[in-house]
Amino acid sequence: MQTKSISTQALQRLPMYLNYLKSLSNDKGTNISATAISEALSLNDVQVRKDLSAISGNGRPKVGYTKNTLIFDIEDFLGYHDNVDAVLAGAGNLGRALISYDGFNCYGLNIVAGFDTNNKIIGSEINGKMIFPMDKLNDLCNRMKIRIGIITVPAIEAQTVCDAMVENGIKAIWNFAPVTLSIQEGVLVRNEDMATSLAILSKHLTE
Amino acid sequence: MQTKSISTQALQRLPMYLNYLKSLSNDKGTNISATAISEALSLNDVQVRKDLSAISGNGRPKVGYTKNTLIFDIEDFLGYHDNVDAVLAGAGNLGRALISYDGFNCYGLNIVAGFDTNNKIIGSEINGKMIFPMDKLNDLCNRMKIRIGIITVPAIEAQTVCDAMVENGIKAIWNFAPVTLSIQEGVLVRNEDMATSLAILSKHLTE
Repeated sequence: MQTKSISTQALQRLPMYLNYLKSLSNDKGTNISATAISEALSLNDVQVRKDLSAISGNGRPKVGYTKNTLIFDIEDFLGYHDNVDAVLAGAGNLGRALISYDGFNCYGLNIVAGFDTNNKIIGSEINGKMIFPMDKLNDLCNRMKIRIGIITVPAIEAQTVCDAMVENGIKAIWNFAPVTLSIQEGVLVRNEDMATSLAILSKHLTE
Repeated sequence: MQTKSISTQALQRLPMYLNYLKSLSNDKGTNISATAISEALSLNDVQVRKDLSAISGNGRPKVGYTKNTLIFDIEDFLGYHDNVDAVLAGAGNLGRALISYDGFNCYGLNIVAGFDTNNKIIGSEINGKMIFPMDKLNDLCNRMKIRIGIITVPAIEAQTVCDAMVENGIKAIWNFAPVTLSIQEGVLVRNEDMATSLAILSKHLTE
């Protein structure tokens, strides 16, 4: 994985480029230009050019990029070729769904274990991943040097779980609980607020 | 469900208020003021006051809101007391996880059926919901007057599925495929881009 810094906006466009590139059939040629990508995705030409040159050194004037090399470079930049281990706290319905979802592997994310406070769930296995009691978080995170934590506990418990994760070396938190977490500098929280998404969709139907 | 119009920003704050209110134990009193909520959530006092007065007529000067009434009013505004039927297209790993997730019921969303193109999946049942072939989308959406569609197909198929949904009366689309969908006016798309979330989290670890 490269460590060049790009803006969050640019980062959000990269998966879009990647999907477009992967959707192109091979008989459409092996090269692709930033202009062609920008036109297909209705994006600004200059912006696409800048995004791509920041993450790949393989563009050539008048020729563009070799498609497969560009796909590799984007995936590499996004960390899809690395495997990052993560833990998940809260093995309720949503947590179990995420642990069961094998698609994260394509993006380099590997959920190694789940944690819960419910004795009925602790000790069980979901998709081959063990569910441990919360007080084992410390041990496992430190031993396996886990850096990513996924929070799927109820809103009221989320801050406590977040604090425990950060205390044990977690640097990036994927939060599915509908709360704003307080965190110290250096830790990144990415909120995935399904309740809000649903509220916005539902409201639209009544407007 | 009320039909008052508030900004998307305000709408995004409502689930936050709701969670805070629900987290308060009953021995802390039955009333709550906008000021107390804004302080607890580190939000602007005036903003909270405005948000709440837009969705609830039950606030009283010096007294504030009756907590349980405010909880009801927010839930009502967000449509949690209604049941909106939805269909899901793409019963792969993520689609199956979402169909299996019962938590959406709390938010008034009811996934009635799934659709897929894979003959091995068609005809099977997930969490009591049938998986139909894509060409039955038309019939079911019209017969059940479905207004919400969830897209969990691969990126390359998402636009075709989106078009089929809109053609059959879907007005709000929850899109989990990492593509920008083209839609006609009057249809709302809410993107839930897990790949981008993961990329942003992974990048943070290398910075």
